[in-house]
Amino acid sequence: MRHSQTLIPTLKEIPADADAKSHQLLLRAGFIRQTVSGVYTYLPLGHKVLKNLEQIVREEMEKAGVTEMLMPALQSSELWKKTGRWYKLGAELMRLHDRHDREFALGATHEEVITSLLRDEVKSYKKLPLQLFQIQTKFRDEQRPRFGLLRGREFVMKDAYSFHTSQESLDQAYDNMYQAYSKIFSRCNLNFRAVIADSGAMGGKDTHEFMALAEIGEDTIAYSDQSDFAANIEMAEVNITYPQNEKALQDLELVDTPGVKTMADVAELLQQPVEAGIKSMLFKVDEHFVLVLARGDREINDIKLQNALGAQEVELASAAETEELLGTEIGSIGPINLPNNIEIVADHAVAMMRNVYCGANQAGKHYIAANLDRDFHVDRYDDLCFIKEGDPSPDGKGTIQFAKGIEVGQVFKLGSFYAEKLGAQYLNEQGKQETMTMGCYGIGISRTLAAIVEQHHDEHGIIWPKEIAPYNVHLIVINPKQEEQAALAEQIYTELQAANISVLFDDRQERPGLKFKDSDLIGLPLRLTVGKAAVDGYVESKQRESGDQQDIHINQLVEKVNELI
Amino acid sequence: MRHSQTLIPTLKEIPADADAKSHQLLLRAGFIRQTVSGVYTYLPLGHKVLKNLEQIVREEMEKAGVTEMLMPALQSSELWKKTGRWYKLGAELMRLHDRHDREFALGATHEEVITSLLRDEVKSYKKLPLQLFQIQTKFRDEQRPRFGLLRGREFVMKDAYSFHTSQESLDQAYDNMYQAYSKIFSRCNLNFRAVIADSGAMGGKDTHEFMALAEIGEDTIAYSDQSDFAANIEMAEVNITYPQNEKALQDLELVDTPGVKTMADVAELLQQPVEAGIKSMLFKVDEHFVLVLARGDREINDIKLQNALGAQEVELASAAETEELLGTEIGSIGPINLPNNIEIVADHAVAMMRNVYCGANQAGKHYIAANLDRDFHVDRYDDLCFIKEGDPSPDGKGTIQFAKGIEVGQVFKLGSFYAEKLGAQYLNEQGKQETMTMGCYGIGISRTLAAIVEQHHDEHGIIWPKEIAPYNVHLIVINPKQEEQAALAEQIYTELQAANISVLFDDRQERPGLKFKDSDLIGLPLRLTVGKAAVDGYVESKQRESGDQQDIHINQLVEKVNELI
Repeated sequence: MRHSQTLIPTLKEIPADADAKSHQLLLRAGFIRQTVSGVYTYLPLGHKVLKNLEQIVREEMEKAGVTEMLMPALQSSELWKKTGRWYKLGAELMRLHDRHDREFALGATHEEVITSLLRDEVKSYKKLPLQLFQIQTKFRDEQRPRFGLLRGREFVMKDAYSFHTSQESLDQAYDNMYQAYSKIFSRCNLNFRAVIADSGAMGGKDTHEFMALAEIGEDTIAYSDQSDFAANIEMAEVNITYPQNEKALQDLELVDTPGVKTMADVAELLQQPVEAGIKSMLFKVDEHFVLVLARGDREINDIKLQNALGAQEVELASAAETEELLGTEIGSIGPINLPNNIEIVADHAVAMMRNVYCGANQAGKHYIAANLDRDFHVDRYDDLCFIKEGDPSPDGKGTIQFAKGIEVGQVFKLGSFYAEKLGAQYLNEQGKQETMTMGCYGIGISRTLAAIVEQHHDEHGIIWPKEIAPYNVHLIVINPKQEEQAALAEQIYTELQAANISVLFDDRQERPGLKFKDSDLIGLPLRLTVGKAAVDGYVESKQRESGDQQDIHINQLVEKVNELI
Repeated sequence: MRHSQTLIPTLKEIPADADAKSHQLLLRAGFIRQTVSGVYTYLPLGHKVLKNLEQIVREEMEKAGVTEMLMPALQSSELWKKTGRWYKLGAELMRLHDRHDREFALGATHEEVITSLLRDEVKSYKKLPLQLFQIQTKFRDEQRPRFGLLRGREFVMKDAYSFHTSQESLDQAYDNMYQAYSKIFSRCNLNFRAVIADSGAMGGKDTHEFMALAEIGEDTIAYSDQSDFAANIEMAEVNITYPQNEKALQDLELVDTPGVKTMADVAELLQQPVEAGIKSMLFKVDEHFVLVLARGDREINDIKLQNALGAQEVELASAAETEELLGTEIGSIGPINLPNNIEIVADHAVAMMRNVYCGANQAGKHYIAANLDRDFHVDRYDDLCFIKEGDPSPDGKGTIQFAKGIEVGQVFKLGSFYAEKLGAQYLNEQGKQETMTMGCYGIGISRTLAAIVEQHHDEHGIIWPKEIAPYNVHLIVINPKQEEQAALAEQIYTELQAANISVLFDDRQERPGLKFKDSDLIGLPLRLTVGKAAVDGYVESKQRESGDQQDIHINQLVEKVNELI
């Protein structure tokens, strides 16, 4: 591609409202432009990258036996009402009316459309399993669109859906998809982790998020430094065998702790370590109240609590509810002398503690040397706390580290939620109606594009991995008016294209310095500069990532370039 | 692709609500399904065809130096208000509000978005001309969606835009695009005509529509049987040198013609040929009235009239207006004794007529032997009538025929309408601000898909041209349970794919008859049937279009298949 035939509007300045590095660089290098908040035009270079990503996804999906199709963006509200998501998704779902006043959603995702399609077209177990995908523009009216392509309102997704007659078949498709995703993100040169995630309110079970590690990421990942274990911190199991505290039991004692609120404050006042105390928190769990106990140095994880109790909803009790139930303020509650209707659940660590201090359910007072079974009881134990950096990895290999991640993909065992709501049934081998079992699998393609830039750049610009780069070679001619240089550049341009090596040819009448700056910013793998040595048939190469330079003779052009890109 | 891994829900019956052949066949062969009126899902086979078409368009655009990009579907109402199209497009433009109650259009076309992009990013003549295209889903809320993909509400388009500093540069891009379109539709095996069309209200000048000839088409094309002349009948010039009627002038006479209304009725009553009379029609042209005269056998073309008079609006005068101005009814009006304030314009044919009959502006009366200049005058002559089958072609070569056409593409010299409204200016070589000149160029990709089916089918199903076909070979095994057959089929499947020949492998456990019926319906270029001859390494081939059959030995497979597809 000749620069003069395309539109690459590079910017010198960092755009004022762009916080994320990828956002800044994609704007500055002329890959994208915002049209309205959270909505972008992909300029020619951005479009090339998008197509390269789509091609990788398409190839790996096809290898995995997943078949491409294309569903519409316009979706009847009827479908969304049947699954309840018309009401549940709120303002995030973009909606419109047609000329006959019928309601539509703009597709944020396609479970409804594809499940009703399969309901109508697949009537027998013989036609299952089926794995289908599409690459399509999606719409989601984010409350706060930001970070450019990382959180937009119109974006490109690959979404796939699988349909099964059994859990085993779903498990197989899930593993299949998991492997395909790993290949895709590896081909994208992303540093990523497949992270155990929360299945949330979608009604499903197993789910993994594929997270590209990046400081700008909005999710925190707990991962092992010695294995491939990784989980969203909301989900990471704490797998520690706590030793029994063997000290002799001391007598329970009530002490004054005026004005102290936090575990750290109490520890300091009592001159005891934080981990010798018990943290007590009162939760409202589906209309009844539960006191949760944890070792003082641990944070209680309400998602674990919700999952452990099989609850629909979990929230902290308010100050008023606490006062009414326990007669005291939130900072002074504890497990001793509780009303009978309050269940007490505790993190596993609590079982092994002795002579602990804890709130006394009286303002400004704590107990010390409280002991389990003698002074208070626990109804049940579970894994209820957040994992911490330095904890042993739950798989027994290595130590937990934290990192920030951008969610670029998710695989999800949906189960039969959508199939039930939409009546997607088939006849089994015995001729009986059964409901289909489903999985869904997404990749944010435009978000992946931005995540790659987050991981692959330096202070001068983007550094595209070879398979993603809009072109592999940036051809620059120092003085296009000089005959030998112009001729050699044209020859190189022709020869590389004939060898199927994609080239961006900067044929502009501009200063070399400006061309080099643009070239670093755009970040193609290899730059070829045609300058004075053109008279001898030489061109200078520079690798974008390593900065390594060498002179290449035109006779060895294709061979050398193939080595260097 | 194995049939068992994909979704091809063929139908035996013709769907009740599908009128167009392409609609019926695409539904029956399992290429598409409607989700709501005018909105379709492309099933795996339909999606393949769509991608093949997109690839042809992309390749020809790139060869023509047009660069791909991608603009968003969500478009701010602000832009559309600036060009006035927010109000002009009415219900056809789909509209929505976001969570902050800002108004958006769903892109029906992208002149507004790209012109404002170029306004912001291109400031100098040095960066022009530019030719950009995208392939994208468009939305148009048709009053009456019908004929499946021929007139949908969500559809796939290629839209291109060019920006220039001069009319010559635009002319060049237009010719360039015209040539590329001709190549594209030729590669699609379409019988098409590039047709001179009306530029309508878009403010532009030259425009051609690319029409695929098909009975179901909504447009009528006038084309020459001996040249490449073709025009929309609204636009086709009538280029006839009428001979002067040399008869002696007779005396004007008023005759009774009670109750007759049409030219044919009058002709019969007067026992004269229709072409010896003058047809008179009163039009309201931008608030003044014009009487239009034509030879009795010709139809007056109001678009030609509008263009000839440079008018904004042309409509027939109402009965009340006619009565008020001429004191009579519409069927009795004529050019003699008109009020002075009514301009009289006539088709060229009228100038050569003598002794004509015409309306007398009195109910139930006509004049006979009326003569130009003696009895009535004409203010100006022009080409004002529709062309007719049998007329000489305007280019002097051959005779005019009519055909129905489906508009699959359009090229359009927009001029500076959008650039002016949106302030798209650049600095010229003298450092002065000038407004850009634009062209726009569309191809309805999903409509082209349907047009191909309209032209390529028989009573058994679709007959896909090779480059468009979802797969090139349909591999059928008569008895998959028979070991030699199964093994040979697998071998063929593997070998063809290795040779880059795409194959749909019907591996279903179904009756051969059903497989053959589906195969004819789906319409891939070549069918290979593995049956009893498998033991000897033979497979039977059948070309879908010619029906020619031959046996192929596995040792010659790839070579023979390449010959036959």
